Amino acid sequence: MMKRFLRSEIDALEHLYKINLINSCSGFKPANLIGSISNNKRPNVAVFSSVVHMGSAPPLMGMVFRPLTVPRDTYKNIKETKYYTINHIHEEITQEAHHTSAKYPLEFSEFDATKLTPQYRDEWDVPFVKNAPVQLLMKYEEEYYIKSNDTILLIGSIEALFIKENLIKHDGFVDLVEGNVTAINGLDAYATPKERRRYDYQRPRQDVLAQFETNNN
Amino acid sequence: MMKRFLRSEIDALEHLYKINLINSCSGFKPANLIGSISNNKRPNVAVFSSVVHMGSAPPLMGMVFRPLTVPRDTYKNIKETKYYTINHIHEEITQEAHHTSAKYPLEFSEFDATKLTPQYRDEWDVPFVKNAPVQLLMKYEEEYYIKSNDTILLIGSIEALFIKENLIKHDGFVDLVEGNVTAINGLDAYATPKERRRYDYQRPRQDVLAQFETNNN
Repeated sequence: MMKRFLRSEIDALEHLYKINLINSCSGFKPANLIGSISNNKRPNVAVFSSVVHMGSAPPLMGMVFRPLTVPRDTYKNIKETKYYTINHIHEEITQEAHHTSAKYPLEFSEFDATKLTPQYRDEWDVPFVKNAPVQLLMKYEEEYYIKSNDTILLIGSIEALFIKENLIKHDGFVDLVEGNVTAINGLDAYATPKERRRYDYQRPRQDVLAQFETNNN
Repeated sequence: MMKRFLRSEIDALEHLYKINLINSCSGFKPANLIGSISNNKRPNVAVFSSVVHMGSAPPLMGMVFRPLTVPRDTYKNIKETKYYTINHIHEEITQEAHHTSAKYPLEFSEFDATKLTPQYRDEWDVPFVKNAPVQLLMKYEEEYYIKSNDTILLIGSIEALFIKENLIKHDGFVDLVEGNVTAINGLDAYATPKERRRYDYQRPRQDVLAQFETNNN
């Protein structure tokens, strides 16, 4: 049996029920820790599930920020320094990663409240999350104010990429299952797939294509 | 060992290697089938991994369209009729879902080339995908042209929602693991998590908070 919710019914739901429900409705979401640093060198780390692949050439990622009616460290830091990191959450750190969602004061570093460890690489000031199987150094490119709900889509480009070597296959595919990378379901559930199946590049099935062309000639 | 790719090295990668690599770098992606229909009543279904939760009140989802340098049925249909559906891909249909990525002619219905079955509900013309554990009826709201790479972020609102009743928990959480919902890794891998763990709402750890406040007074 399918339960149906019409829009008017969704709008009338109790707040927590509604955000649990709607946050599950896009499917599994990526589980990332965003590292950033303020101009006065306070590091920050925060869990995000809204990173979206925008394109590979140039290599771009988007992420969604909720309305900026309350100050948000990650957004402020990115605007100040232009750099941030995206770090994949793996199975062993889901609980610590989730704790970064607690409401600490501005300028407080969640690295100090969790077992997450900042890692500084090469000449860059911005912290990565140590032991994350995939780490991206991102540079702010542009942002879009979304009129429908006062959110912001922030676009960054990949400036450097660190991946556990054994996860990279001969054709560039990165095996996130082998890396124990997790996915987010809703607001607070973490699910780590243990198997994956790759499919070949798909070409049209010739029989149905021939039928379609016959019908259209 | 971590393998490092600098931006200049990423840009110089062979095309297929690059798209495999960068498409894996956002983490696991949602696995959705987008249903749409043209003004002249040709249904269409296509796999997408770029749906992103934008907000719950109002309930909004975004999705990214690649550059419109070649005509794309899904985008054209949404612009024509303003409605589309988002359907979660479950484990049993990953192969058929992935086949919708084959390059069929415009106006060809991928429902005719796959075992995916269109399902029409209530008074709506737009097809859902039968047996999907979560089905959303979406209405076009607005779109943003992304200058960095000529893509489009299209925003839709949830007009109706159908969810397998047993997946909905007492607080509105939808258990995607119980629904055998899958996630996408890169361009062509499907991974279905079998377990998930929910965490409580996180409050600041009082000991570290007290230490922070002492240091700042």
